[in-house]
Amino acid sequence: MSKRDKLSNRRLFLKSSLVAGASINGVISANSAFAKNQGDGFLEVDPWTKTQGSTFVNPPYGLPSKYEKNVVRLLPSPAPTFLTGSRTPLQSLHGIITPNGLVFERHHAGVPDINPDLHKLVIHGLVDRPMVFSMEDIVRFPSESRINFLECSGNSAAELKKASNQTVQQIHGLLSCCEWTGVRLSTILQECGVQPSAKWALAEGADGAAMTRSIPMSKMMDDALLVYAQNGEMLRAEQGYPLRLFLPGYEGNMSIKWLRRIKLGTEPWQTREETSAYTDLRADGKALQFTFAMEVKSVITQPSGMMKLKSKGFYEISGFAWSGNGKIRRVEVSTDGGKSWSEAVLQEPVIDKSLVRFRFPWMWDGAPATLMSRAVDSSGEVQPTMDAVIKAKSANTFYHNNAIQPWRVAANGEVTNGR
Amino acid sequence: MSKRDKLSNRRLFLKSSLVAGASINGVISANSAFAKNQGDGFLEVDPWTKTQGSTFVNPPYGLPSKYEKNVVRLLPSPAPTFLTGSRTPLQSLHGIITPNGLVFERHHAGVPDINPDLHKLVIHGLVDRPMVFSMEDIVRFPSESRINFLECSGNSAAELKKASNQTVQQIHGLLSCCEWTGVRLSTILQECGVQPSAKWALAEGADGAAMTRSIPMSKMMDDALLVYAQNGEMLRAEQGYPLRLFLPGYEGNMSIKWLRRIKLGTEPWQTREETSAYTDLRADGKALQFTFAMEVKSVITQPSGMMKLKSKGFYEISGFAWSGNGKIRRVEVSTDGGKSWSEAVLQEPVIDKSLVRFRFPWMWDGAPATLMSRAVDSSGEVQPTMDAVIKAKSANTFYHNNAIQPWRVAANGEVTNGR
Repeated sequence: MSKRDKLSNRRLFLKSSLVAGASINGVISANSAFAKNQGDGFLEVDPWTKTQGSTFVNPPYGLPSKYEKNVVRLLPSPAPTFLTGSRTPLQSLHGIITPNGLVFERHHAGVPDINPDLHKLVIHGLVDRPMVFSMEDIVRFPSESRINFLECSGNSAAELKKASNQTVQQIHGLLSCCEWTGVRLSTILQECGVQPSAKWALAEGADGAAMTRSIPMSKMMDDALLVYAQNGEMLRAEQGYPLRLFLPGYEGNMSIKWLRRIKLGTEPWQTREETSAYTDLRADGKALQFTFAMEVKSVITQPSGMMKLKSKGFYEISGFAWSGNGKIRRVEVSTDGGKSWSEAVLQEPVIDKSLVRFRFPWMWDGAPATLMSRAVDSSGEVQPTMDAVIKAKSANTFYHNNAIQPWRVAANGEVTNGR
Repeated sequence: MSKRDKLSNRRLFLKSSLVAGASINGVISANSAFAKNQGDGFLEVDPWTKTQGSTFVNPPYGLPSKYEKNVVRLLPSPAPTFLTGSRTPLQSLHGIITPNGLVFERHHAGVPDINPDLHKLVIHGLVDRPMVFSMEDIVRFPSESRINFLECSGNSAAELKKASNQTVQQIHGLLSCCEWTGVRLSTILQECGVQPSAKWALAEGADGAAMTRSIPMSKMMDDALLVYAQNGEMLRAEQGYPLRLFLPGYEGNMSIKWLRRIKLGTEPWQTREETSAYTDLRADGKALQFTFAMEVKSVITQPSGMMKLKSKGFYEISGFAWSGNGKIRRVEVSTDGGKSWSEAVLQEPVIDKSLVRFRFPWMWDGAPATLMSRAVDSSGEVQPTMDAVIKAKSANTFYHNNAIQPWRVAANGEVTNGR
């Protein structure tokens, strides 16, 4: 355990004890089934201990418990003619890793069925040696792994127009965090000989949409990764199998999936996805292009929208913080609608451009309360309020909403969107 | 990116360049399909780009690509009358996280089907207040997440008797690494009031074997965790759903799955699993009991047993290092059967009692070679050779084999067990 982790834990326990022994007693007294000083009389043996367990629940590739069948990605409703995306159940996640089966999706023309033996990556344009790489070539290069978040630039976008009474999955579920493994793009570009005049790169997907984005060479030579594995195993089909670009901290659509081509040039290509979409409309009617980094943001996932607190007493408020501009330095939590703020504990490891799990002990007295979280990153950026976002951008803007999410807890325990 | 990560990368690239431009050219020249200076003529469009992709490959809970159907846990062969375990495909893993579908299993009476709404944890014995906790109670307590390895004490045990010509999955596959989330056991024990005379705890599973182990109170009050989630989602059935004990760094069987009871006492209970099994036979015929920590160990997973290198040239040697006694400080790699050793690059984050991914650039000249890795941990322990393990313990010992694993690369590229 790192010194920081120890410190954090000490702080957590300190805070727990500040809210008094009552905090934990609050948990206990909430449940009348607690046995107190009954000796060993309560040691009944459950039926599953009296029988041989199953050997058939565990196939060679394992699946979640049948009791967790509702913890799934959320598909659009009503079902569209073709699936454009699905959302991660943030309210059911623990820690910082999103399991691959629950990572959100966003496609522009469905999921292509790519045979990895036939897949090729072409690198051309302003290079000395245009080249074609097979997957077998790519996996032989020196590799790297990184734990990074991935967020769609349109995540929680609808909130800018109108507060919706939904779950955190519905509002913020275009967000996941994985351990990504692949080859540093700079390693491969060096093989091709980057010409000094190259200032931008075009990345193109092999899906039916031939999804394309222009990316500055500075990013491509810095931390861009050619990713083939995710959380230890090869990419899932819907995540770009067998190869995707990964641009840590940048809006999700730029991490081109099913990557087939990178072309180097002098200017951005002005593709459909940087002219008709993924631009930020401002109040003056002009739109900003090439707003790459996802700005500092956080959201409370427990408790969150559409949940119900069953009783007064101790709760751990918990959620995620992240920033495309660096490391999370601090997360503050308010339980009084922003009047006062206290620092939350950050779970180690706190990784650059990764989701960070924050936790905050809270004693609910049964009165209405509004819960908020506010993140600060290593660039000094502070997560803004919704009013500030709308003022700085426009009520008609759609992408890059990093506003504070308030959750209102009613006296009956119901949690709703607190905007 | 941390300073250390940057340093590691610089060192990796330095090493790459030391083995010369030839290293990467070795990759390139290995594949005649590489296009060189062909202009844009090689930009053929693949069939999957010309069609709408599928919307049906991505169910609400996603699965791996159909092209990865052979990346699965290994079941015993021939199939036993009931399944006692399965092994993780270490040779196919990337990074440090083992996806839940591939985490190894070891059961003593199959997998019980436990309804989480009915599951209870009893804490009794030398406590002021014996208590029963429901899962609903447990998840309300302050939580923690940690990335830790889990290794069966019998991992690679058969090698002590006889070198087997098998894959790294067959030999070392009782090993995985996950992000575990739960409640610190000390938090719950404090609720019950630990009596000063309590020196040992008995942990009991709710499976048909009622798996039981005695654990020192010092460990229980230090970093023992009541785990309900694994890699972001609730535990898998075969991993102890809905609740398991987790003892970072200790042999796997002690992290009791399907945990139903913890009793505090003054002495170990001398259960079946600490008398008839899980003891370490020494040369003098006596057996050591209560050898808890898994000692410092590493293994090269790429390349590894039963693989075949297709051609001379650049390869990245890669694998895992871990220790139950602390952090991995250093991993050294030898490509000449242990005559000379060089330091490998450790992928950040390097976490206490976690798998650590190491990488080492290697230029294979086509001559026979023997690859080895040797880990050193923060306690100063150095991974021993097989001879040293047998000398220190006994040829008849079974558990806790942390010996160096040599892989022999033949001139034809075939990789076999190098013992």
